[in-house]
Amino acid sequence: MSLPTESYLIGLIGDGVTPSLTPAMHEREGAAHGLLYLYRPIDLSVLGLPPESVGELVRAAGNLGFNGLNITHPCKQLVIGHLDEVDENAARLGAVNTVVIGTDGRTVGHNTDFSGFLTAFRTGLPDAALGHVVQLGAGGAGSAVAYALLTAGVGHLTIVDIDPARAEGRASELSALFPGASVTAGTTAALASLLAEADGVVHCTPVGMAAHPGTPFDTALLTPRHWVADIVYRPIETQLVREARALGCRVLDGGRMAVGQAVDAFRIFTGLEPDAERMRAHFLGLIEEENRREALAAGAA
Amino acid sequence: MSLPTESYLIGLIGDGVTPSLTPAMHEREGAAHGLLYLYRPIDLSVLGLPPESVGELVRAAGNLGFNGLNITHPCKQLVIGHLDEVDENAARLGAVNTVVIGTDGRTVGHNTDFSGFLTAFRTGLPDAALGHVVQLGAGGAGSAVAYALLTAGVGHLTIVDIDPARAEGRASELSALFPGASVTAGTTAALASLLAEADGVVHCTPVGMAAHPGTPFDTALLTPRHWVADIVYRPIETQLVREARALGCRVLDGGRMAVGQAVDAFRIFTGLEPDAERMRAHFLGLIEEENRREALAAGAA
Repeated sequence: MSLPTESYLIGLIGDGVTPSLTPAMHEREGAAHGLLYLYRPIDLSVLGLPPESVGELVRAAGNLGFNGLNITHPCKQLVIGHLDEVDENAARLGAVNTVVIGTDGRTVGHNTDFSGFLTAFRTGLPDAALGHVVQLGAGGAGSAVAYALLTAGVGHLTIVDIDPARAEGRASELSALFPGASVTAGTTAALASLLAEADGVVHCTPVGMAAHPGTPFDTALLTPRHWVADIVYRPIETQLVREARALGCRVLDGGRMAVGQAVDAFRIFTGLEPDAERMRAHFLGLIEEENRREALAAGAA
Repeated sequence: MSLPTESYLIGLIGDGVTPSLTPAMHEREGAAHGLLYLYRPIDLSVLGLPPESVGELVRAAGNLGFNGLNITHPCKQLVIGHLDEVDENAARLGAVNTVVIGTDGRTVGHNTDFSGFLTAFRTGLPDAALGHVVQLGAGGAGSAVAYALLTAGVGHLTIVDIDPARAEGRASELSALFPGASVTAGTTAALASLLAEADGVVHCTPVGMAAHPGTPFDTALLTPRHWVADIVYRPIETQLVREARALGCRVLDGGRMAVGQAVDAFRIFTGLEPDAERMRAHFLGLIEEENRREALAAGAA
């Protein structure tokens, strides 16, 4: 067979992962490095398996020669109890999305949602003012993003969620982890006054996806002073991204985080340095293909 | 991710399969077809798993996106109870070495030890006289070979084994499956008289491998009239093959069956026609590499 240093077998475990673009991104980058690199989606909903089966799937993947796994909703917390080791940031975050499986079967968890957003933010919005940032959405992805923002040095982070208790819980957890920063919960009712004071706004809810059209807040609240980061990437040009850009805001689209997490996972799996710009170009091409297919399907219907 | 028609994930389950050349043969042939084709050995002894775990491994492979599995010692019989369907020859033989896993998870078993030897025999020893054949060795591989010989039309097959009961058992099973042929058990003591009457002899014991040097019988019993088939392929040129050829016998080396089973498995997994000669050339190259590495290691020791 191919040597372990020449071939990589990776999987993505989660619910509804069949349409994920991550497998294709990894396979293309692997091929560009001359590797035999195969990446399989392992979709719990297709298999009819509960989220709790993630431990058994990780163990089976080790037995069957997988080099690593990405883990997504709803297994990022659940998987932790089944790993031999978890790196510091993933442990503090309480979420793992990347598992490396050693040739001895030893499993180590990482979080590249956090690191991927952090890299995307630093490279895509360099010199962004970090005094006060408002984040909308305190779910799983939101947690990783908030952790990254505080790691990047945000002084005051206000977390807003339609579920005020969730925003409060997340804010108090992050306050404990980042005692040097101020992390508070805000309400949607207070958004106008929050944004009036904020340097930037990060969007971590599903609004803007095809199934949830619109913007997560009235973009009339934005001024050219604000920077805006979206994590929705289907479409890349969400209504928020489009309107913010038109208003003169500096903008980070959701594709940057999606690519950033894949770039970091590829590096962790292979020990090789991926070409981040090439991976982003692949990713944008895949999104375009997807749009073309959907337009064709709509035309045929 | 890559489409299922563009990428193949295959495994080999068995005890001590790490040094098998089958994964490399498949991967190279897959690459020659432009496929993303990854083939992992799944070694029970490395994993510390009992042969009985084959059912769980097959199920896990289905969940994790494998397209197929080869199965070898000691799981070829055990696996049958865990499959959704078994093809006619594999069912009659009572042994499966190739499992196709459908996109719906449905598993179908085949036996390419049988078909691989049959093809090798027909192409490598065309017009071989089939009146009376003596076979040495009635183990797992021997069973598939005997089944292939009778399928090829051997009129009288004498099976000889150091364990007379095993030879008797195998002969009586095959008699029931091939009522038109005569299948009997012979003893090692009677080999000289058996060979005096035989058209050809097939060797299915480990004698001739590096760890079991020598020939399985006194080659002075061979005449140029005999054809000789060996299934040992490490080395390709066993002492039996070498001496038989020197005596003027037509000879089939063990590599032909090893390649034949891989050729058939590749076709079953992919639906594509492999290039059998290219696979044999790959295989001989791999054996040569192995010899070179061993010679180097011996020199360094």
